[in-house]
Amino acid sequence: MNQLAPTESSKQNVSFETLTIVGVGLLGGSVALAAKRSGAARRIIGVGRNLARLSEACAAGVIDQAQTDLRQAASESNLIVLATPVDQIVSFVREAATACRPGTILTDVGSTKAHRCRELAHGLPAVVTFVGAHPIAGSHKQGWQHSHADLFDERVCVVTPLSSSDRKAVDAVATFWRRLGLSVFELSPEAHDQALAQTSHLPHVVASALARTLTEENRPFAATGFADTTRIAAGDPALWIPILLDNVDSILISLQGYTQQLADFQDALSRRDVHELQRLWNHGKAIRDSLRIRKTGE
Amino acid sequence: MNQLAPTESSKQNVSFETLTIVGVGLLGGSVALAAKRSGAARRIIGVGRNLARLSEACAAGVIDQAQTDLRQAASESNLIVLATPVDQIVSFVREAATACRPGTILTDVGSTKAHRCRELAHGLPAVVTFVGAHPIAGSHKQGWQHSHADLFDERVCVVTPLSSSDRKAVDAVATFWRRLGLSVFELSPEAHDQALAQTSHLPHVVASALARTLTEENRPFAATGFADTTRIAAGDPALWIPILLDNVDSILISLQGYTQQLADFQDALSRRDVHELQRLWNHGKAIRDSLRIRKTGE
Repeated sequence: MNQLAPTESSKQNVSFETLTIVGVGLLGGSVALAAKRSGAARRIIGVGRNLARLSEACAAGVIDQAQTDLRQAASESNLIVLATPVDQIVSFVREAATACRPGTILTDVGSTKAHRCRELAHGLPAVVTFVGAHPIAGSHKQGWQHSHADLFDERVCVVTPLSSSDRKAVDAVATFWRRLGLSVFELSPEAHDQALAQTSHLPHVVASALARTLTEENRPFAATGFADTTRIAAGDPALWIPILLDNVDSILISLQGYTQQLADFQDALSRRDVHELQRLWNHGKAIRDSLRIRKTGE
Repeated sequence: MNQLAPTESSKQNVSFETLTIVGVGLLGGSVALAAKRSGAARRIIGVGRNLARLSEACAAGVIDQAQTDLRQAASESNLIVLATPVDQIVSFVREAATACRPGTILTDVGSTKAHRCRELAHGLPAVVTFVGAHPIAGSHKQGWQHSHADLFDERVCVVTPLSSSDRKAVDAVATFWRRLGLSVFELSPEAHDQALAQTSHLPHVVASALARTLTEENRPFAATGFADTTRIAAGDPALWIPILLDNVDSILISLQGYTQQLADFQDALSRRDVHELQRLWNHGKAIRDSLRIRKTGE
């Protein structure tokens, strides 16, 4: 793990003349707003299938231009951010790359990295570069209407270059995310997926499984504790099923570790072992108390 | 399950002349503030061991009088609310009951009910009545400084009388909690404990076990999803260990059901079964989306 020191370029106000965002939802919209606020991009094109919805985002000032033709947008761009579900990123990158001018950089916001970064290491034109990134921020809410310029403030972005990646492009991508408010870490795509299996993908499985235990007749007795513990189970399946499927091996390993923690609780409960319960509880509390995570302004 | 219809007395502005609250923490303090706001009590005595802390709560207007002598407070009271950790309630009720005037009612806010209600069905003076109650509200924060008059607004209170309980006292207790802003349900103590094992005690175990899986090196990659799913793992062990120990059998049953839900996810992931993953996810999401729970104003 390697937290990147600010590079020279991040101290200057280097901007991308034209930024294209593919997928103007909560994350894509927030990238647009944060890039505008920071001056990291001068003009922002939003690409999507639904022109009416894009035009609304344009009218709301989230993007500067609505475009359904990815290649047309790509040909005008210096930086392209893919903010689609993870299972659509590879094909959109390949399509965009065919139209890019030399020197164009592509990055993404996907929650899984290994498969995609390995796939995109081959077959792109030599003059364009893809550098995987994962700004760890979001919400269970959907749509650009919920996007914020400050969604990324104080968050972490993991940049996941390959050893073969062009270093200048990696630095430019890191600088871009840093200007949007994030602290940038550099990990291999595989190390990223292992870490996120534990910190994000496992919690989604945990929350969803817990939500499924609630019977109809017990709903009146669920309060804020149950609601918070299951909040992320409300996530969009179009985003989350592809993420889970893309990181099965690491999630299964994390799930195994979690099942062991549950077994430890089960064992201590069965034996009514107050000291062991205290030890388990206090350890979990110490870890939770150590997290300093800004709440998303919703 | 039986949601109580408002009784005649709840439509009138029946108040308790003097209310004693034993344990002036987040919950006890909020009972005091809500009772004051609603006029459900005219004078409120706070009982605790630490006179200095009680005097601060008194100076802050949370209670009207600070008292370290439980019997003295009990002798002046019409209603006594026990807001201590669950493992201290029985002995405080027995001690208070020896000093109560005839007709005094005692209730509590404990998160487990069966053992306590059965124990207190015997050995109290015939002229006083204990009616178990559980206002399902709270916070991982501690201390009367975090108490709110509106902590109970739109929450549920489960009242858990025994078949032998005095019906007038049960109605008076139900009316009291209703005036504090809660919807009142009546369950047997055992049914309460089974329901709360699922909606509250299991989620605490789930959250604590999940918190324990987070390694030091992965902490930077934990964001709001991890933080929300583990929020209640930060609960006070002095409250939560006694609750878990008091409801072991029901928690173990709930934990077994939860472990099966995790196994279903594990199985679907191992087989990369997209349709089964969607079915599991959509079911969890539908249940979570159906919850309409007011956030605690913090």
